Amino acid sequence: MRKRLLIDMDGVLSDVYGQFLKCEFDDIGLRQSLEELSGKLEKDAFTNFDKYVNSENFFYSANPIEDSIEIVKKLNENYDVFIVSSATEFPNSLIEKMNWLKEYFPFISWKQVVLCGTKEIVSGDIMIDDHFKNLDTFQGETILFTQPHNIKEENHKHRRVYNWKEIENLLLR
Amino acid sequence: MRKRLLIDMDGVLSDVYGQFLKCEFDDIGLRQSLEELSGKLEKDAFTNFDKYVNSENFFYSANPIEDSIEIVKKLNENYDVFIVSSATEFPNSLIEKMNWLKEYFPFISWKQVVLCGTKEIVSGDIMIDDHFKNLDTFQGETILFTQPHNIKEENHKHRRVYNWKEIENLLLR
Repeated sequence: MRKRLLIDMDGVLSDVYGQFLKCEFDDIGLRQSLEELSGKLEKDAFTNFDKYVNSENFFYSANPIEDSIEIVKKLNENYDVFIVSSATEFPNSLIEKMNWLKEYFPFISWKQVVLCGTKEIVSGDIMIDDHFKNLDTFQGETILFTQPHNIKEENHKHRRVYNWKEIENLLLR
Repeated sequence: MRKRLLIDMDGVLSDVYGQFLKCEFDDIGLRQSLEELSGKLEKDAFTNFDKYVNSENFFYSANPIEDSIEIVKKLNENYDVFIVSSATEFPNSLIEKMNWLKEYFPFISWKQVVLCGTKEIVSGDIMIDDHFKNLDTFQGETILFTQPHNIKEENHKHRRVYNWKEIENLLLR
């Protein structure tokens, strides 16, 4: 029986940091370094966080994270993949996220997408996420995708990866 | 510890049959009786199903099912309620469903909403749904909300209810 693999969107498939940095530069001319962002949740790291996440096309115009497309495509052939995204807080993001997936991950069907408020309610065998709050309550195997907000965090519970090639090595060998 | 209660939207909270009947009458002048609809899934029961579900405001302008608001409000005080809706098949419905919940069920927060393609992936203690496909794979207690499409179906596995008052009696006494 194939394992059920839950994959997060923002910060795992989708480069939301790139979006935040771009928005902040366009908005107030600020260009923060990775060092400045380290250890702060996105809400605290970016001055006008709410304005940016609620702006049109914020989610739709994000770039996919390096190597994610080709590796998720292979994972999709070997696992029951679900894309699980915390999205209901930003209702305008919902259709953008569906359109974004259709554009970059056309092999993922609408049946494989879950848009929720909390991930506690979702069950599976493996979860890939960049937020501790999602991984900490998950019953299965957990993979922490490194992003500036979690980089300083002590982590004994979840396997940390830095890029998609590492996930490929872990799950497809 | 409070039990986690998963509640479906279409056909349980939201009167989608009323919407289909109205659309069909406006579209082709047909007014089907309950008898004609019995035992047919919505897709097969309504001539231009796809056109209707993809039309603007189809989900947003639906009426709430009788007594659902006041009883879900009480359930929300006694259970960990989640509204779980199969919605990703119709991306335009996503924001309409969020807006509809905000209008009629303002006591339900975005954290309590799950918009998905299949409900297999969602876990909980009790599920209220009108579709066998959702109840059959659920691990907890199951409550079948009667709608024309399921009324003729033999049912040994799920507790059948005909209205929200029955749910109140079952879960709040």
